[in-house]
Amino acid sequence: MPSYTAPTKDMQFVLHDLLQASTQDIPGYDEMDRDFTGAVLEEAGKLAQDVLHPLNEVGDRQGCTLENGVVRTPEGFRAAFDQVRDGGWTALDCDPEYGGQGLPYLMQTGVGEILSAANMAFNMYQGLTHGAYSAIHVHGTNAQKQKWLPKMVTCEWTGTMNLTEPHAGTDLGMMRTKAEPQDDGTYRITGQKIFISAGDHDMAENIVHLVLAKITGAPEGIKGVSLFIVPKMIVDDDGNIGARNGVSVGKIEEKMGIHGNATCVMNYDGATGYLLGEAHKGMRAMFTMMNEARLGVGLQGYAQAEIAYQNALAYAIDRLQGRDVTGAKNPDGPADPLIVHPDIRRNLMDQKSFVEGARAFVFWGAMMIDRAHRNEDKDADGLISLLTPVIKGFLTDKGFEFAVNAQQVYGGHGYIEEWGMSQFVRDARIAQIYEGANGIQALDLVGRKLAQDGGKHVMAFFEMVKSFIKDNAGNEVLEAGFLDPLKAASKDLQAASMYFMQHGMKNPNAALSGSYDFMHLFGHVCLGLMWARMAKAAGEKLAEDGADRDFLEAKIATGRYYMARQLPATAMHLARIETGPDTIMALESTAF
Amino acid sequence: MPSYTAPTKDMQFVLHDLLQASTQDIPGYDEMDRDFTGAVLEEAGKLAQDVLHPLNEVGDRQGCTLENGVVRTPEGFRAAFDQVRDGGWTALDCDPEYGGQGLPYLMQTGVGEILSAANMAFNMYQGLTHGAYSAIHVHGTNAQKQKWLPKMVTCEWTGTMNLTEPHAGTDLGMMRTKAEPQDDGTYRITGQKIFISAGDHDMAENIVHLVLAKITGAPEGIKGVSLFIVPKMIVDDDGNIGARNGVSVGKIEEKMGIHGNATCVMNYDGATGYLLGEAHKGMRAMFTMMNEARLGVGLQGYAQAEIAYQNALAYAIDRLQGRDVTGAKNPDGPADPLIVHPDIRRNLMDQKSFVEGARAFVFWGAMMIDRAHRNEDKDADGLISLLTPVIKGFLTDKGFEFAVNAQQVYGGHGYIEEWGMSQFVRDARIAQIYEGANGIQALDLVGRKLAQDGGKHVMAFFEMVKSFIKDNAGNEVLEAGFLDPLKAASKDLQAASMYFMQHGMKNPNAALSGSYDFMHLFGHVCLGLMWARMAKAAGEKLAEDGADRDFLEAKIATGRYYMARQLPATAMHLARIETGPDTIMALESTAF
Repeated sequence: MPSYTAPTKDMQFVLHDLLQASTQDIPGYDEMDRDFTGAVLEEAGKLAQDVLHPLNEVGDRQGCTLENGVVRTPEGFRAAFDQVRDGGWTALDCDPEYGGQGLPYLMQTGVGEILSAANMAFNMYQGLTHGAYSAIHVHGTNAQKQKWLPKMVTCEWTGTMNLTEPHAGTDLGMMRTKAEPQDDGTYRITGQKIFISAGDHDMAENIVHLVLAKITGAPEGIKGVSLFIVPKMIVDDDGNIGARNGVSVGKIEEKMGIHGNATCVMNYDGATGYLLGEAHKGMRAMFTMMNEARLGVGLQGYAQAEIAYQNALAYAIDRLQGRDVTGAKNPDGPADPLIVHPDIRRNLMDQKSFVEGARAFVFWGAMMIDRAHRNEDKDADGLISLLTPVIKGFLTDKGFEFAVNAQQVYGGHGYIEEWGMSQFVRDARIAQIYEGANGIQALDLVGRKLAQDGGKHVMAFFEMVKSFIKDNAGNEVLEAGFLDPLKAASKDLQAASMYFMQHGMKNPNAALSGSYDFMHLFGHVCLGLMWARMAKAAGEKLAEDGADRDFLEAKIATGRYYMARQLPATAMHLARIETGPDTIMALESTAF
Repeated sequence: MPSYTAPTKDMQFVLHDLLQASTQDIPGYDEMDRDFTGAVLEEAGKLAQDVLHPLNEVGDRQGCTLENGVVRTPEGFRAAFDQVRDGGWTALDCDPEYGGQGLPYLMQTGVGEILSAANMAFNMYQGLTHGAYSAIHVHGTNAQKQKWLPKMVTCEWTGTMNLTEPHAGTDLGMMRTKAEPQDDGTYRITGQKIFISAGDHDMAENIVHLVLAKITGAPEGIKGVSLFIVPKMIVDDDGNIGARNGVSVGKIEEKMGIHGNATCVMNYDGATGYLLGEAHKGMRAMFTMMNEARLGVGLQGYAQAEIAYQNALAYAIDRLQGRDVTGAKNPDGPADPLIVHPDIRRNLMDQKSFVEGARAFVFWGAMMIDRAHRNEDKDADGLISLLTPVIKGFLTDKGFEFAVNAQQVYGGHGYIEEWGMSQFVRDARIAQIYEGANGIQALDLVGRKLAQDGGKHVMAFFEMVKSFIKDNAGNEVLEAGFLDPLKAASKDLQAASMYFMQHGMKNPNAALSGSYDFMHLFGHVCLGLMWARMAKAAGEKLAEDGADRDFLEAKIATGRYYMARQLPATAMHLARIETGPDTIMALESTAF
C-alpha cells in the first residue's frame, strides 16, 4: 500500500527562502510568517495523511454509483468531507465577508498540493466548488453573493462547472443548451451537459451548477453564450432549501481514473436558472477564474508526481535487487537496494528535480495571482496570464510522465493495482485533458498570450531571466552549473519566439505547428529559472549559522541535475519548431 | 467503440519493397512472394477484425476470475481460441516435424502484429506458448520434444514461463523455488512464482509450465538455477492426460491492463517436474529465446500504438471542432474536422511516423533472426542481439507514449472507458515492464551488448549506416531531408559510444548513467535508417508504371517528418549522456 507524507519542509523553503513571502508588499502576506504557514501546512498534512490518503484507494476501487437517480460516493468520503469542512479547509482564501478566512491564494495553493496529492478525486469536490465560488464572487450581484456564497465557502453546498456538450468540447460556440427568459426574470434551462465533475453526490445538501447556455435569440457562436446559476435544489430568499430543480444525472461515466469523483452527464429539463453576469458574456465570466483553475490543474499534475515519487523512492530504498557495480553497498544482505543503480537514480532524480521545480513554479505563480488580485498589479496579471498555459500544459504532461516513471521503479509490482502506483498514473492522466486539453493550452500560449499587450509580458519574462543572470554573475553556487544552462535555454526560447514572429504573420501554421514544443520549451526555462533562484537561496542560507546543510546541499545538487539533464531538451524543441510547418502539413487528410 | 483494420498494405510494402523478402537467400524465403504473404496477412486481418478485436473490450471489462481454483477467461475467449487453433495460426513458424508450418519468423511477426494489435491480452496465451515451445524445441531431449511439442504447436496445450518470485524479479539469483531429485529421474518442485501470464485458464486441456528452480545442493546465485517442465496435468508416455500435478493458482492479480490475460500467482507443492536442458544452466536455456521474446514485446508496444493511431485518426477526421486558421475547410458544416489543426496533425504525424518506422525495424529484426537461425549467420545473430534491447525498450516506451498521445486526440472522450482509448494505453504500459523492464534493457545494451565480441556488432551497425549514406549520395529523394539528419544522428550515437568507451572502464557508472538515453538515441538512429531505406524504396517504386503514387508519396512525406521532427532528440540524449554520472550520483541515498 502506498503512503504519503506532506513535503512541508520543502514547501517552507519555497515559501520563505525562495519567495520570502512574509516580506512581500502584498496585502495579507505580512501574516504569512514561517510559524504560521508551518502550522497550517502541518495540520493539512495530518488531515491528508490520516483521513484523505487512506480513502484514495477506496475511492479508486469502489468508484461512485448511480442508483435511482442518486449518486453515492465511496465509503468514508462523506465523513471525511465533514472533517474537511469542520476544519475550515474549504474557506482558506475565501472572502471573509462570506465566511472565508481571507488568506492569500498562495496559502491555499500549498494546502491544495497536499490535499490533492493525498486524494485527487476527493479534493475535486472542494476544488470545483471553489471555482464556482470565484465566478459568483466576481460576477454575481450582491443578492446572488449573499444567497450562494456563504454555504459554498463552507462547502455545505458544493459547486460545478457545466461547459461541455456531446458535440461541443473546445468549440463551445456550437453548444445547444438553451435558456428561455421567464417573466420573473429567471430562465428555463434545457439541454445536456457532459463530463461534469462532482456533478452529483451525497455529501452536500445542495449543488450549485454553473451552466453555460444560449438565451433565446442570442447571437450565433461563442458570443451568444451566457452563464447561469442552476441549483440542484431551489433556495428561497431566506436561504431555505425548497423543491428539487429540473436537473438530473443521466449517467456516471466509467473513466480511466479519478473514480472517486462522479463524472456526470447532467440533464437540464426546464430547470430554473439565474443569469450570472451579463447576458451573452458567459465565456468572459468563465475565463475570469481561468488562471486560477488552470494553475490548480497544473498543481494536480505535479502533486500526483510527488506522491508517486515518494513511493518510488521508498521502494527503491527498500527493495533489494542486484549489486552496485562499483562494489556491494549491502554486503551482508542478499542484494543491494535498487537505489544504488545509476539508472534507478536517474529516474528518481528526474522525478525529484521536476517536482521540486514545479512546486516553486506554481507557488511563485500563486504569488503572482495574489499580486494581480490584491495589489491590482497589471504586470503580475499579464505575466501569470502568459505563464498559465505553461503551468497547466507543461506541468501536467511532465507530472504524468514522471508518475509513469515512478511506476516503472516498481517493475511488475507497479502494474498491479494493489501497490497503488497505477492509480497515480491513471489519476494524473486527466489533468492533461480537462480544463482545456494541453494542445489548447499550447494554442492559447502561442496564438494569444505571446502577442498579448503587444508582447509586453513575454519581453518582461525574458528581461527577468536576463537580469537574474546578470545580477548573479560571479555567484559561486550559480556559476557552477546554473547560469550557463539557463542562458542557453533562454536563448532557445527567444529564438523560438523570434521564429514565430518572423513566420507566424505570413503563415499562422508556422506558429501553430510549433506550439506544443514551445510550451515545453517555455516550461523548461521556467523550471530552470526557478532552480537557479532556489540554488541561490540555498547557497545564501548555507552561510548562516545552524543551517540545515544536508537539505540545502541536496537542494543545490538536485537543481544542478535539472540544469544538466533536463534543460538540454530546449535545443530539441527549438530544432523542431524551426523545421516549420511543412513536414507537419505535408499530407492531405485523405493521405494519412 | 474503437475499430481495427490490419495495415496489410503497409506490411506488404515493408516485406517486399523494403526487405525484398522473396529474393533473400534465407531458406524458406523463396515462398514469401507478394501473393502468398498478402493472402496470409489478409486472412489474419479478417480473424483480427471479426473475431479478436470485438473481444478486446470484453476482455478488459470482464477480466479473468478465479473460482474454486479454476480460472475463467472472459466470455467468447474460448470459442475464439478454437478458431485461432483451427485456422492453424498457432503453428505458422513451428517446426514441421512437430506439426508446424515451418514458415519464416518474419511471416509470424507480421501476423503477430495484427493479432496483438487487435487483442493484446488474448494473443498472449498463444505468444507465451510459442516461447515455451521454443525453449523445449532448442533444449529438450528427443523424447521431451515428441511428448510436448505437437500439442503445443496446436495450442491444445498452452505454455508459460515462470521466472519471478516475490523477492526475486530482475535478480533471479535470489530465487527460492527448489527442485528435489527423485529416484525416477524427475524432480519435486516446491515454491511460489508470481506474475505468471496465462498461468491458468479454461481454454486448453493442459498447461506446460516452464519453471526456474534450484536443484538441492546447487551453487549459490544465478549459476545454480535450472529449468523444468512442470505440466498442470501429468502426461503418460503415450500422451494420455492423467492426474493433476501439484501446481495450483494462488490468486489472480488485479492489474492496470491486459485484464483478459490471467496473471497468476502459481504455487508449486511438490509438483513433478522434468529437467529441461542441463542442470544449473537454466538461465542459458531461458535466454536462448530472449531475442525472439523481446522482439515480440517491442512488437506489442508499437502494435498498441498502431491501433490507437487508427482510432485517433478516425476521430480527428470525424469530430468537428473549431476552424482552420487559414480558412474553413468544411464551410457548410458547423465546424472543421480536428485534423485541420496543426497541433492535431503534429500529434498524428508523430504517431504515424513512429508506427511505420517501428514496423520496418521489427520486420527487419525478424529477418535478422531468420538469417541467424536458418543460415546460422553469426553476424546477423550478433547484430540482432545488439539491437534487441533497443527494439524492446525504445519501441515499448514510444509505443506507450504515442498511445497516450492518440488518447489525447479524443479530449475528454479519451478518458472514458467506453471509447476504448484508455485500454490501449493501459495495455501498452505492461510492455515497458515485463520481459525485462526497460531500464534492464538499457543496462543490457550498454553493459553487455555494446562490448560483445569486441564491439564488432556495433561497429557493423555504424558501417551499415555509413555505407548507406555513402552509397546513396545524390539520390534525389534521400538528399531532400533524409541523409543529413541520418548522418547527424548517427554521429551523435558514435559520440555517445565513444564517451562510454573513454569513461566506462574507469567508472562503470559513467556508462550506466547514460544507458537509458543511449537506448533511445540508438532507437532514433535505427528508425531514421529504416525511414531512409523506405524512402529510397518508395522513390524507386514511384518511377515504375502504375505505381501507387498517393501511398508512396505519403510514405516519403511521413519519413521526412520523422527525420525533421523526431531525430533532433538524438542531440539531447547525447548532451545528457555527456554530462556524465556526477549529477546523477551526487546525493547520498539518505539525502533524497
